[in-house]
Amino acid sequence: MKKLSKITAGLTGQPMFQLLTKANDMEAKGRRILHFEIGDSGFESFFHIRETTKKALDMDHTHYVDSAGIPELRTAVADHIEDSLQYRPDSEQIVIMPANSVIDFVIRCVADEGEEIIFPDPGFSTYRAVSNYTGVKAITVQLKEENNFHIEPKKIAEKITDKTRLLIINSPHNPTGAVLDMDEIKSIYKIAEDNDIYLLSDEVYSRVIYDKIHYSPSVFDKCKSRTIILNGFSKSYSMPGWRLGYAIGPEELIKKMTLLFQTIYSCTPPFIQHAGVSALKDNQHIVENRILKFKELRDLLIEEVNQISGLSCTVPDGAYYVFVNIKDTGMNSSEFADFALEKAGVAVLPGTCLGNYGEGFVRICFARKPTVIKEACSKLKIALADLNPKSQIQDVNIPATKHNKVSETVS
Amino acid sequence: MKKLSKITAGLTGQPMFQLLTKANDMEAKGRRILHFEIGDSGFESFFHIRETTKKALDMDHTHYVDSAGIPELRTAVADHIEDSLQYRPDSEQIVIMPANSVIDFVIRCVADEGEEIIFPDPGFSTYRAVSNYTGVKAITVQLKEENNFHIEPKKIAEKITDKTRLLIINSPHNPTGAVLDMDEIKSIYKIAEDNDIYLLSDEVYSRVIYDKIHYSPSVFDKCKSRTIILNGFSKSYSMPGWRLGYAIGPEELIKKMTLLFQTIYSCTPPFIQHAGVSALKDNQHIVENRILKFKELRDLLIEEVNQISGLSCTVPDGAYYVFVNIKDTGMNSSEFADFALEKAGVAVLPGTCLGNYGEGFVRICFARKPTVIKEACSKLKIALADLNPKSQIQDVNIPATKHNKVSETVS
Repeated sequence: MKKLSKITAGLTGQPMFQLLTKANDMEAKGRRILHFEIGDSGFESFFHIRETTKKALDMDHTHYVDSAGIPELRTAVADHIEDSLQYRPDSEQIVIMPANSVIDFVIRCVADEGEEIIFPDPGFSTYRAVSNYTGVKAITVQLKEENNFHIEPKKIAEKITDKTRLLIINSPHNPTGAVLDMDEIKSIYKIAEDNDIYLLSDEVYSRVIYDKIHYSPSVFDKCKSRTIILNGFSKSYSMPGWRLGYAIGPEELIKKMTLLFQTIYSCTPPFIQHAGVSALKDNQHIVENRILKFKELRDLLIEEVNQISGLSCTVPDGAYYVFVNIKDTGMNSSEFADFALEKAGVAVLPGTCLGNYGEGFVRICFARKPTVIKEACSKLKIALADLNPKSQIQDVNIPATKHNKVSETVS
Repeated sequence: MKKLSKITAGLTGQPMFQLLTKANDMEAKGRRILHFEIGDSGFESFFHIRETTKKALDMDHTHYVDSAGIPELRTAVADHIEDSLQYRPDSEQIVIMPANSVIDFVIRCVADEGEEIIFPDPGFSTYRAVSNYTGVKAITVQLKEENNFHIEPKKIAEKITDKTRLLIINSPHNPTGAVLDMDEIKSIYKIAEDNDIYLLSDEVYSRVIYDKIHYSPSVFDKCKSRTIILNGFSKSYSMPGWRLGYAIGPEELIKKMTLLFQTIYSCTPPFIQHAGVSALKDNQHIVENRILKFKELRDLLIEEVNQISGLSCTVPDGAYYVFVNIKDTGMNSSEFADFALEKAGVAVLPGTCLGNYGEGFVRICFARKPTVIKEACSKLKIALADLNPKSQIQDVNIPATKHNKVSETVS
């Protein structure tokens, strides 16, 4: 085999997609698998958004368009920011692209090999994945369960060196659901400002929030000097496979990111961009009702998890994951995930896929049907009881569910 | 402004998209622009493909899927290769991603900064664009009009050094329409084999071919040792804005490209992948009829161009561009394109956007309505006559066309 390039040695991808492929393969062989490993909202994409897309296809919105995005969607994004954050970004500050691409492109456009970026651990795997293959150095700030996984501004400040180029924050946070308050956001912005570094605010879960308010550091500079907002439609609008998102940032940086996107991708499909306009503009009460539904599902999962001996969890204020402490099972994260998949047919994500400090935890996505949540927890309970027959587990009830592919959509 | 990374200095993007944006801006200000700058087929996306997509949306094929592509599309691609090239690639050799991403990912996965890749000049701009920003050295082989723009294998061989990692060929060729014959393909494969380098065969126009046969170097190694096929749906199936394509190559390389795609993009939207299955499987006679239509449009454009004093062109055997020699106008490529846009409202691509050896030429996409082709050529004729009133230009007729946005679709 001819040699491959240096970057290939550092390609790690997204572990949840690798687990999805593994679980899908088991399913293809006839095994029933309950999927909790991937951050798919589980709900169907909204009917009105799919209908808008179909109309855009009827109108043949299928041709090449501006790489930065169609004007209608960039305007809708500006409207949305004005409504939610009380400032209006310029059109030149906005580029339409998948949220994952934003992470890759921001890191590659602000940091060279050997320079440093700071992000939370545990945290979304793509921050680490991009660092791994580019040679940009990952400096992590540990999130602790005893702090409800809130990132501590003073710990960030301690990590800054003259090589620091970028700080990434994520509130609501994947995988822990922590939502930063205004004081924390203000302190973090100040650190970025004092050290004159870029600040990537991953706000993908900004609308998936329970009884709390989402604060964005972008209000301090209106994304004009250092803050880059990353947002996407996958989570808030149940559009995971659509690959639609956007970045708002300093014009010069957005221009470079647009050129990189143009080089690798040309443009985002226009009929998908029209879907994005519909997501931001139409039927907002339906979108909000779905968030309320997520909250019910969160409460159900927490109730179920807390009945399983060896498992415990804090209550997430946003996003749709519970980061379950599995230390009392005696297994590590990876062993637990393998055990859950093999013995219970339940796919969960090892915390270590999200950082070294994810050890001792697994991420469970609660955007699933209630019956599936109950079935999965029952199966885990049984599997753990079998593992340790001396434990106090009793009263195991498997709910009578139909064995169709329940993981796909939430009723 | 905080400094940006080194790669940002080399980001050049795709010049045709920048020209599209400029032309669109002029249109938005009320100017009528005839678009010939971008390689959009001009036709509507096929009705049956759009209907398949709508059904996939109805079935909510909108969730996360395997990063390498859905099994149905990878199987359809394998079937298509078996039908057209008489060998069947393994599923692990196939990854679904946009064609542009394939170029970026292949180059980045086989070559390090300072190593060399060889490609034709003039040639598709993304080869150069990726080289520009990655620091991988671009070594070009000049295509000459007197050879009908066929790449000469012996010229390729002369360029190979111990730093060469990859050779890119493109037949049918953008922008010249040259189609390589079996002997040329065989010689080129032999050069790649003798020097043990990768060979990226850009076959995006493999079905857009007139009176000739498309040969692929992949038949020699079945994409198992060095050849990577790059193909996409934009051109053959009139799906430009869909951003759907695929790569077939050695398993180890495809695995790395899939990880890179997973990092940056997660997966290709599943409803778009279902459209791809329809493109490859359904109504092939309609697809072939459209190619016949392209041929008529080619002949029309050539006839019209040859009536304009100062312009001349060779006959392309494939793709849907005419690479027009404008040397006798006394303008260079860039001046001519500016002149055509400003004076005639006709957007054409300067040959220099496609390489240094594109100087003296402009690329005109002939996949346009006949009335639009005639109108554009008339306007160019008038504009050139105004420029040089002593020339022999006579009999200028502007056809009576409706001034709606005729550039979008071909009747």
